Amino acid sequence: MEKLAVVALGGNALLRDNEKGTIEEQEIHTAETLENLMFLINAGYDLIVTHGNGPQVGNILMRNDAGMQLYGITPMPLDICVADTQGGIGYMIERIFRNILNKHGIKRNVITIVGMVEVDPGDEAFKNPTKRIGMYYTEEQAQNLSKEKGWIFKLSKQGEKGWRRVVPSPTPKAIFNLEVIKSLARQGNIIITCGGGGIPVYYDENKDVRTVDAVIDKDLASSVLANGVEANEFYILTDVPFIFKDYGLPTQEKLEFLDYKDTVKYLEAGTFAEGSMAPKIVAALSFIKSGGEKSIITEASKLEDKSYGSKITMEYGV
Amino acid sequence: MEKLAVVALGGNALLRDNEKGTIEEQEIHTAETLENLMFLINAGYDLIVTHGNGPQVGNILMRNDAGMQLYGITPMPLDICVADTQGGIGYMIERIFRNILNKHGIKRNVITIVGMVEVDPGDEAFKNPTKRIGMYYTEEQAQNLSKEKGWIFKLSKQGEKGWRRVVPSPTPKAIFNLEVIKSLARQGNIIITCGGGGIPVYYDENKDVRTVDAVIDKDLASSVLANGVEANEFYILTDVPFIFKDYGLPTQEKLEFLDYKDTVKYLEAGTFAEGSMAPKIVAALSFIKSGGEKSIITEASKLEDKSYGSKITMEYGV
Repeated sequence: MEKLAVVALGGNALLRDNEKGTIEEQEIHTAETLENLMFLINAGYDLIVTHGNGPQVGNILMRNDAGMQLYGITPMPLDICVADTQGGIGYMIERIFRNILNKHGIKRNVITIVGMVEVDPGDEAFKNPTKRIGMYYTEEQAQNLSKEKGWIFKLSKQGEKGWRRVVPSPTPKAIFNLEVIKSLARQGNIIITCGGGGIPVYYDENKDVRTVDAVIDKDLASSVLANGVEANEFYILTDVPFIFKDYGLPTQEKLEFLDYKDTVKYLEAGTFAEGSMAPKIVAALSFIKSGGEKSIITEASKLEDKSYGSKITMEYGV
Repeated sequence: MEKLAVVALGGNALLRDNEKGTIEEQEIHTAETLENLMFLINAGYDLIVTHGNGPQVGNILMRNDAGMQLYGITPMPLDICVADTQGGIGYMIERIFRNILNKHGIKRNVITIVGMVEVDPGDEAFKNPTKRIGMYYTEEQAQNLSKEKGWIFKLSKQGEKGWRRVVPSPTPKAIFNLEVIKSLARQGNIIITCGGGGIPVYYDENKDVRTVDAVIDKDLASSVLANGVEANEFYILTDVPFIFKDYGLPTQEKLEFLDYKDTVKYLEAGTFAEGSMAPKIVAALSFIKSGGEKSIITEASKLEDKSYGSKITMEYGV
């Protein structure tokens, strides 16, 4: 059997902060990123691709607000907005991937599957919403929305930009349609799913699927997916070529080959930046702990050169 | 082998014109509609569901406009907007369908697949865009957008509401991922796909998949899908329980059992309303002509009573 890889595309792989976010820009970055995945395709890997949706869902939330203000159009809740981005971004990746494969003369099918992810309604995260989403509001607007919709707000990190809604970021427990995704990927289809960390839902006491206003960390959801489908390798693509110890400090050190125990130690020592690299490391470690062979964290543009990237295994050398 | 049905849900099945279009309203109608599909599930049918997206994509287009005006957020092109609705509506249908099945104690999987549909770039429709989409503009706004983006505008049907963008509505040729959809449905999975008639794309001379600003008729796309997967029956759910000859005239007559030849004659004689029932009849006939056993046009709420609905077969009595 061929090796199976799950590749989580970071925001940078699709869209850059210093750009306007036009579809043309997104298509160019997506094509570059997918071109870099060809080394996996050429090596015969089965492949599942996940992706972020931060800027896209942020834009949809702001358009929701603007549509209500200007035209009185009822806004959609967060779960629908995330699902929207899975459709739009998934389709864009699928179409471009088909063209990259065509350019290389490779016949592989690409399928985009809408991805729900189960969370635990008792997750501690629901008591302490931390994930900032959507637009900045004035204090008055935030108070009104809080009364009207029960939303919770926090002052933006910089303070001066205003208030932002915060939602819980619960731990992903299970991926819907997991067996179908695995089986299709194992038949050689390239699967795109779980965009934006998946649409968070939970089962109530009647086993009905219920929605919840929350967002799931994309890398954590991808890690659960990767373990669920018994992937061999789990790639987290981000905007740095390697993991660094003490990034930005005089003691900065490139970490290329890591084993599980050392990485846990570094993580516990606070070596990795909270809110950026640390959650990726947690996702990578979780994949290894649950039986995965290798987690790779690197920059999409460097993927083609196999020597690049930080590789975490249970015991390095495996 | 069990019978396979393709069911196209009309706008009314999800959302009503006289409502605000909140997610709560959409969920109630969707649940009612899906409950009515239980007779197919109970009869052991394999099932593929398609759906409209008119009001939803209309809202997204207006939010695009408002987001640009208020916050300068780059609008997304039509193909991305349609793909967004496939994610959002598909997820909503999938989640509610899972709960309806759970209520009835039935274990069937539900999978939402983003659906691209191939059109012919030489389609005559591209010379004569007819499908009105999005918001109403003043003459000046329309002229500016026409210069800036090359959009084509027509005065709204009522005239007084202003100008609307028109896009081509080409004939669907083929459904992407058809074999996967068929195979998953034949394994008993309920598939949701081709929302809003699918995302229209074409193959260029290099066999690359290219986007096009157009929308495909949902019933026609569903008909091509139904033939492609070799469905036995094709249901078009709309807001009337039967097809009527001369609807609204003194000569109005309910047509319950129709054969192919009679229906073609009625259609050619202009018996059915252009822009509403006529295209549904064309889709239903197309399914029969290409080998389908039976097309059924009826109201979703009447589906449970099998005696309801207009049935078209090659020769009635089959």
